[in-house]
Amino acid sequence: MSVPKIVVLGAGYGGLMTVRGLQKELNYNEAEVTIVNKNSYHYITTELHKPAAGTSHHDHARLAISSVVNEKKVNFIQDTVTEIQLKEQRVILKNTTDPLDYDYLVIALGSAPETFGIKGLLDHAFFIRDIDSVRMIREHMEYMFSRYQQEKKEELITIVVGGAGFTGIEYVGELVDRMPELCREYDIPPEKVRIVNVEAAPTVLPGFDKELVDYAVKYLESKGVEFIINTPIESCTPEGVTLKGGKEIKAFTVVWTGGIRGNRLIEDAGIENIRGRVKVDKQLRAPGWDNVFVVGDCSLVINEEIDRPYPPTAQIATQQGQFLGKNLPILIRGGEMGTFSYQPKGTVASLGRKEAIGIVSDKKVVGSSASFLKKIIDLRWLYMLGGVSLVLRKGKL
Amino acid sequence: MSVPKIVVLGAGYGGLMTVRGLQKELNYNEAEVTIVNKNSYHYITTELHKPAAGTSHHDHARLAISSVVNEKKVNFIQDTVTEIQLKEQRVILKNTTDPLDYDYLVIALGSAPETFGIKGLLDHAFFIRDIDSVRMIREHMEYMFSRYQQEKKEELITIVVGGAGFTGIEYVGELVDRMPELCREYDIPPEKVRIVNVEAAPTVLPGFDKELVDYAVKYLESKGVEFIINTPIESCTPEGVTLKGGKEIKAFTVVWTGGIRGNRLIEDAGIENIRGRVKVDKQLRAPGWDNVFVVGDCSLVINEEIDRPYPPTAQIATQQGQFLGKNLPILIRGGEMGTFSYQPKGTVASLGRKEAIGIVSDKKVVGSSASFLKKIIDLRWLYMLGGVSLVLRKGKL
Repeated sequence: MSVPKIVVLGAGYGGLMTVRGLQKELNYNEAEVTIVNKNSYHYITTELHKPAAGTSHHDHARLAISSVVNEKKVNFIQDTVTEIQLKEQRVILKNTTDPLDYDYLVIALGSAPETFGIKGLLDHAFFIRDIDSVRMIREHMEYMFSRYQQEKKEELITIVVGGAGFTGIEYVGELVDRMPELCREYDIPPEKVRIVNVEAAPTVLPGFDKELVDYAVKYLESKGVEFIINTPIESCTPEGVTLKGGKEIKAFTVVWTGGIRGNRLIEDAGIENIRGRVKVDKQLRAPGWDNVFVVGDCSLVINEEIDRPYPPTAQIATQQGQFLGKNLPILIRGGEMGTFSYQPKGTVASLGRKEAIGIVSDKKVVGSSASFLKKIIDLRWLYMLGGVSLVLRKGKL
Repeated sequence: MSVPKIVVLGAGYGGLMTVRGLQKELNYNEAEVTIVNKNSYHYITTELHKPAAGTSHHDHARLAISSVVNEKKVNFIQDTVTEIQLKEQRVILKNTTDPLDYDYLVIALGSAPETFGIKGLLDHAFFIRDIDSVRMIREHMEYMFSRYQQEKKEELITIVVGGAGFTGIEYVGELVDRMPELCREYDIPPEKVRIVNVEAAPTVLPGFDKELVDYAVKYLESKGVEFIINTPIESCTPEGVTLKGGKEIKAFTVVWTGGIRGNRLIEDAGIENIRGRVKVDKQLRAPGWDNVFVVGDCSLVINEEIDRPYPPTAQIATQQGQFLGKNLPILIRGGEMGTFSYQPKGTVASLGRKEAIGIVSDKKVVGSSASFLKKIIDLRWLYMLGGVSLVLRKGKL
């Protein structure tokens, strides 16, 4: 007798949390669970702005999948998904000859940068996306700084961050922390370095509480950050960016944090989507496919209070994964799945190591207490993944 | 009554040793001594191959001039020499309006890379030359390695070292030591990395004892280094090098160690020279100028046994500086200067942290004992510059 096959694509927040739930809930031989991931490790997306600035090592932002997935209960395949064939109920992998058949599919493939058609951005800007990309940003920036003493060009030590949303602001905060060390390392007078944060919207952190935004801007400006708001980037070259209105900023390091889109594999599979993201139903199903679930950045969940989608965050992906981890076993046993409803627990944005702003339980927090809260939130993810032992091994306060 | 003005250009081995001698030998108000140097620090040229590979930090290869020059006895001007006007007995500096007058001039300006007209080398290769350049090599190499996981191009992790002389071999030895760490840092399979050492002469380390050369080659080959001897590089592009015969090696990192030449300021000043180097007399004087001395890499001293110049080394520069430090005071006091004669004390080339080859007191040494000797030799320079306290502060065994 064959058991149902559950295949989870992607070991991000949504995928891993699904699998963690399944390996806890399912009894022996109730289902065969497989998780596919490109790398042998999970990376902690909410930490990536730190290694991108060089304030912490990228190894602190990843952990081996084998350390959080029980390989006695779950198959792990390290490979890249190249195609999802919904009608055939199978997935094609890059380095595995046989297709991977499924009865239930969980798509948790994450997002890709959205560049809104800005010319040159995909080719010349960097993206805070995964371990490989943030390691490259750090090394690129350091290489540019190392050239300054010989070439004395200011664009070598000018960094443009496109987008002043959550990632943009958190990255700028880390850059501010990193600069004293970088300037010492490369014999650069600190006052020569420019960090310019460009945002198309009329405010930094669009949608965030105004008082907190002001706090963040004031703090970062006091550290020398220049904000240019209400101004879209029109194009990007290896030498810098041109803003709407024609102003140029010469900068050899341009990091784009201005938006994300869903996964191209979803578009290719023919699932109904909006820029690669799937508006899922109350059970996180893709429209028209009862056995296909979508979680994380490539899913869209509507906040009914304001009739707009919730922003894609680790928090919602985690809750979606928890939901599937609990409800897929119910479905397999012939029961009826519950209803997913997102419970926002608040938001804290770090501004470097010692500062932060946020809203937790409807209360505004700033400064070192907010910063402490942020660290607690980060530790919570480790705890959910691997309990106290993982917190002790990987956590930093 | 005015005292004679001694101006020393450059704070390398020759210049610093001259000044160290002068500040010890001269009595109060016997002469006014000034040393000019581009940087506020002296760099230890014989150590530069280490920070260039990243096996030690560049700060270990430099020390503040103020820590070894007594500023009560010697004026230190941090500036760049732009012109030497011999007839007017003065030196023009970049950022100082007034010319610097001298009665006695010591030119210790060091060398520049000699590229033998190889096309593209000056623009696209790196040089192990000073702190700025080696820091840049390290950062460039690391940036290339950081791109490998995304781009998967082998030229990103291929390093061509042009020249298998002393510096070339020592640098390759450090690269070999560095690779395990670099590969871990950037998730690169070590067997993918290529280090190719190209030499135009028919042997590695031309002029060195054959048995020792074989030892070095065997050791480095066992660590994966590829040697291509008897083969000049014909051209260099950002993508790699083309060898004589047409073979191409794709490599984004090309480091040229194949030769040095003297200083362009010497040619511009109209001193008789061979590629910027001055064949000095027995008192280290420039031909035709009784009050102008040349030491270090921009001087040429003939080894009369074989009627060929001694290779430019820290050792000969140091001895020349010691000679001037002792003899210039004699000259000023109206005495007669002695005669410089170079006393070679032996040569040891390191091959990374644990291996070395060399000849000391006519005895061949290899392996860990040679490596230990090399470290002693390095410490000796610190001792000569700043005594035991400097050895304790900066020295590493």
